[in-house]
Amino acid sequence: MKNFEKYTRQYFMPPEPSFKWVEKDHIEKAPIWCSVDLRDGNQALIVPMTLDQKIEFFKLLVKVGFKEIEVGFPAASDTEYNFLRALIEQNLIPEDVTIQVLTQAREHIIRKTFEALNGAKKAVVHVYNSTSLAQREQVFKKSKEEILKIAVDGAALLKKLAAETEGNFSFEYSPESFTGTEVEYSLEVCNAVLDVWQPTPDNKVIINLPSTVQHSMPHVYASQIEYMSTHMKYRENVILSLHPHNDRGCGVSDAEMGILAGADRIEGTLFGNGERTGNVDIVTLAMNMFSQGVDPELDFTDMPYVSEQYEKFTGMSIDMRSPYSGALVFAAFSGSHQDAIAKGMKYREENDCQYWTVPYLPVDPTDVGRRYEADVIRINSQSGKGGVGYILEQNFGLNLPAKMREAMGYAAKGVSDEQHKELQPEEIFELFKEKYEDIQTPYNITEVHFKQHNGIIAEVTVTCNGESRVAIASGNGRLNAVSNALKKCYHLEYDLVTYQEHALEQSSSSRAIAYVGIKDKNDSLYWGAGVDQDIIRASINALVTAINNKETA
Amino acid sequence: MKNFEKYTRQYFMPPEPSFKWVEKDHIEKAPIWCSVDLRDGNQALIVPMTLDQKIEFFKLLVKVGFKEIEVGFPAASDTEYNFLRALIEQNLIPEDVTIQVLTQAREHIIRKTFEALNGAKKAVVHVYNSTSLAQREQVFKKSKEEILKIAVDGAALLKKLAAETEGNFSFEYSPESFTGTEVEYSLEVCNAVLDVWQPTPDNKVIINLPSTVQHSMPHVYASQIEYMSTHMKYRENVILSLHPHNDRGCGVSDAEMGILAGADRIEGTLFGNGERTGNVDIVTLAMNMFSQGVDPELDFTDMPYVSEQYEKFTGMSIDMRSPYSGALVFAAFSGSHQDAIAKGMKYREENDCQYWTVPYLPVDPTDVGRRYEADVIRINSQSGKGGVGYILEQNFGLNLPAKMREAMGYAAKGVSDEQHKELQPEEIFELFKEKYEDIQTPYNITEVHFKQHNGIIAEVTVTCNGESRVAIASGNGRLNAVSNALKKCYHLEYDLVTYQEHALEQSSSSRAIAYVGIKDKNDSLYWGAGVDQDIIRASINALVTAINNKETA
Repeated sequence: MKNFEKYTRQYFMPPEPSFKWVEKDHIEKAPIWCSVDLRDGNQALIVPMTLDQKIEFFKLLVKVGFKEIEVGFPAASDTEYNFLRALIEQNLIPEDVTIQVLTQAREHIIRKTFEALNGAKKAVVHVYNSTSLAQREQVFKKSKEEILKIAVDGAALLKKLAAETEGNFSFEYSPESFTGTEVEYSLEVCNAVLDVWQPTPDNKVIINLPSTVQHSMPHVYASQIEYMSTHMKYRENVILSLHPHNDRGCGVSDAEMGILAGADRIEGTLFGNGERTGNVDIVTLAMNMFSQGVDPELDFTDMPYVSEQYEKFTGMSIDMRSPYSGALVFAAFSGSHQDAIAKGMKYREENDCQYWTVPYLPVDPTDVGRRYEADVIRINSQSGKGGVGYILEQNFGLNLPAKMREAMGYAAKGVSDEQHKELQPEEIFELFKEKYEDIQTPYNITEVHFKQHNGIIAEVTVTCNGESRVAIASGNGRLNAVSNALKKCYHLEYDLVTYQEHALEQSSSSRAIAYVGIKDKNDSLYWGAGVDQDIIRASINALVTAINNKETA
Repeated sequence: MKNFEKYTRQYFMPPEPSFKWVEKDHIEKAPIWCSVDLRDGNQALIVPMTLDQKIEFFKLLVKVGFKEIEVGFPAASDTEYNFLRALIEQNLIPEDVTIQVLTQAREHIIRKTFEALNGAKKAVVHVYNSTSLAQREQVFKKSKEEILKIAVDGAALLKKLAAETEGNFSFEYSPESFTGTEVEYSLEVCNAVLDVWQPTPDNKVIINLPSTVQHSMPHVYASQIEYMSTHMKYRENVILSLHPHNDRGCGVSDAEMGILAGADRIEGTLFGNGERTGNVDIVTLAMNMFSQGVDPELDFTDMPYVSEQYEKFTGMSIDMRSPYSGALVFAAFSGSHQDAIAKGMKYREENDCQYWTVPYLPVDPTDVGRRYEADVIRINSQSGKGGVGYILEQNFGLNLPAKMREAMGYAAKGVSDEQHKELQPEEIFELFKEKYEDIQTPYNITEVHFKQHNGIIAEVTVTCNGESRVAIASGNGRLNAVSNALKKCYHLEYDLVTYQEHALEQSSSSRAIAYVGIKDKNDSLYWGAGVDQDIIRASINALVTAINNKETA
C-alpha cells in the first residue's frame, strides 16, 4: 500500500447542493471581526504570553479596531483566569468592546468560567463541544444523542448562570470540529442549543462553525455554511460566525466564501497565528476587502508597528511573503516588473486616476506604512534599467536619458551578479558616480574660453598623460565647439548623440547635472555625466567623461 | 476620502457565468506539475542563486519528482544563460524531464533564447506578453490589436526558430497579467496564438493563464478558467496551465478550483517561494491531494530534507505554520487536543482502521518524515494530562493511572507557567521522578519480612526522622499488610485507592514500576511510584512515596 492510500475525504457534503453563494463575486461589507489572538493564538505559542504581555496585546487589538476579543479560557489556567480578572477589575475594557471567553460544555468548567466573569460589563460566553464523527467514536465514545445532550445541557447551564451572575452576558455555541461532522447533525445540535437559548432581536446569539481542521476545499465549506445558514432556526436572531483554520492553506478562502454563503462574523488572528497552521489571517482578510474598495473597519495603516508589536508579544515572526505585511511583498527585483511599476507610478502622477491600478502592486505600499524607496524597487542581478533608473530618480534626483539608464542597468546588474548580493540605493549611486561622473583621465579639460564670432569659438586647454595642449575650434554651440576642439587636437572619432541636463537642487545657485552620450564608428554608445554650478562646465565634464569611457573601454 | 476608497475591483468576469466546476467537491488526479523555482522563485530572492546552487536545486526538484522544470530566462542574464548551457552540455537533464525556458515576445530576446537552447533534447519554450488593461494603458501604451500582434508575431518566430534549431521544442504561451485582462480578450489572443501554432494530438501546446497578481476571489478565477477552457480552440490539443500567485493569500485555492474548472497543469514553487507573496505552494497542493487519498505524484516523504535543502539554496526560511512543512504544524500544546490525539492514536492501534482519522492531525506526521515524540505532543502551560501522559508513555514507557496522569499534568503545566517555557520530554520525566519516584522522607522502609499465615503478615522496619521502628501487621496481601503496619505504627490515616504496576523493560530480570494512589479524609489524592526489579519492593516504594507526598503536602 502506498502512503496516500491510507487517507480518504473526511468531510461531509450538505444533504442537498447549496451553491447560491458562487454567483456573488465579491464581499460588500466587513463582517463582525472577533480576534482570538489571546486564545487560539496564545495557546499555539511555544511560550504563551505573560499577564503583562496579554494586557499590552489586548490594547493593540483595541487600537487596531477590534470590537470583539476572545480573551481566554479562564477555567483552564491561573494565568488566563487572572488576565480576565485584571481586565474587569482594572477597567481595561473600552465601552464599545465586548470580551469573549471560551468554555467546554462541562459543568465545573462552566461554573468556574462564570466565577471569573463576575462583574463583566459585556461578555460573550462561548461554549463548545466536539461533534465530529472521529471524536464521537475515538475520544468520547458517545452516541449522537449523548453528544447533543452535552451541548444542550451546557447551553442550559449558561442561561442559568448568566441570570445569576453580575454582568451582561450573551452566548455563543460552537459544534467543535464542525468540518468533520455530518452537516445535518451539526444543524440538529445547533438548533437544539438555539431552542434552549431562544434568541430574540434584542438578544441575539452567535452560532460559530469552525473549520477546526480543514478537511475540504473552500467551496465545500461555503456550501456547508450556506446549508446551515438556510436551515438554521431563529436565523434572523442568530449571528452566524466562522472560525477557519489553515491546514490546507485555504483559511482565507474559507472565510471569504463563507461570508458570501451567509456568515456574519469571522473569528481569526493577526497574521494567521494559531494552532498548527494557524487561524485565518485577519490582516489578509481585511486588506483583501480594502484593496477592492471596501471599508475593512480595521486599521492597518501602520502595519510595521502592528507587525513589530505582534512579533514582540508572541515571539513568532511574520513570513517575508505574508500578504500585505511580509518584508518582501512589495519588492520588485525583476527588470520588467520594475519597469512596469515605474511607468505605472508615472502614469498615475501624470493622469488624474480615480483608482489605484499600478501594475504588480495590489495596494499602494504607503497605505500600510511602507515606503517605495526601501520596499518596492530593489536591485539585484535580476533587475534592469527601469528599477535602477527609478532608484536614481526617486532617491537622488537623477533623471538619466533612456539609453543611459539601460547602460547603468546593465552595470548594476553585473555588479550584483558578480558580488552575489542585493545593491542598496547608496551603492547604486556610488556605482553611477564611479562609472559616469566627472572622470578626468586620460583627458582632462583644465581651462575653456569662449568667443562669439560666426558661431562660438572655444579655446580649450586639455591635459592628457601629463602633457598639456591648447586647441581652438568653432561650433554652432559651446559644447559643440569644445567637442570640435578635442576632436581636432587628438584626432578623436565619435558623434555626440545625446545631451540632457537638469538642475539638481531648486535654486539659481544650485548645481546642474549634464548627461552626454557619444557613439563610435561601430555604433557603440558611451556615457558621461558632469555636475557643476555652471551648466556649461557640467556639460563639458559630461562630454569628457564620455570620451574617457570610450577611450578606456 | 478614506484610503480604501482609492481602490476598486480590477478583475473582469467572464462574459457569461461559468460555474459547473463548483459541483465537483474534490480533485481526482494530480495535474502536470511544473516547478518554476529556478525562475520566479530565483528572481524573487534578495540574493539569486549561483550556478552551482541552481544545479543542486535542479537535482532536488528531479528527486522530488518534477517532470517539467522552468530553468530560467536565458536571454536575461549571463548566469541564466550559462546555467541552461551547463544543463544541456553536462547532460544533467534526465530522459523523462523536460526543461522550460521563459522569453518575452520580442525578437532579439527570442533569438537569444534559441541560441541558448541549442541541442536541448526536450524543451518547452514559454513566450509571454502582458495583456492587461493596466499594462496596455500605462506601460505599453498600445491598442488591443497591437498587443495581440506582439503575441502572434512571437508565436510565429518561435515556430520558425524551433524548426531551425537543433533540439526538440514545444511551445507555451502566457497572456501575462491574465487576471487583469478582459476574459474575452485573453481568449482572443490565446486563440490567435493557437492558430499560429496549430497544435495536434502529437504536438500539443501549453496555454498558461497566470494569476500574475491576485485581484479576485478564487471562485472568480475558476470561472474565468472554466470560460477559457470551454471556449478555447483546439482545446483537446491544448494543455491548460495555471500559474497562481498569492497576493490575497489564496494561491492554493486558485490552483485547486482552477483544476476543477478544467486546468491540466500547475506552475508553482516549493513552499510558495516567488515574487512578492510568492507563487502557489506546490508542497501544499500535493499534500492536500495526498491527505484525501489521491496520489500527488511528488514525493515529500522526507520533508525535513527537502525543507533544509530549500532553505540552504534560497536563503529563505519556511514559516513555522506553513502547511505540512512548518515546524509547528503538527504541534499540539492544548490539553484537549493532546488528549484527543492520544486517544485517537490508541484507537488506531486497537482497531483495524482502514483510513487515517486521528483528530487534529490532517496527515500522519511520519508520512512526511516527522516524529510524534518531537513534533506533535508538546508541553507548555496550555497543556494537560493527555499530553503529559502521552509523553511519559511514548518516550519513557510509563503508563500512569488516569488520575495520576491528571496530577502529573497539573504539575507540568504549573512548572511551565511559572518558568515561562516549553518543557522537553526529558524535563517532564525528571519532574515525574522528582515528584513521584521513590521518595524516602520522612518515612523510609529499610527492611520487610513476610510470613504467610491467615493471609500475609508483614514485619516492617521503618525509619522516620532518624528514628527506626519495627511494625508488624497482617493484611489480605503483601502491600496491604505493609500498609497496615505503617498505619498502626505511626497512626496514619489514608485509604489506598489505586494500585497499578507494569514491567519497564521486556525480560524476566527487568525492572517494574508500581503506582499507588492514596486518599486522605478530605478525599484529596496523593501519588507515588516505585521502581525495582522486585515487584513487591516497587509497590512498597510507591506506597511510601504516596504517604510521604501526603505528609509533606
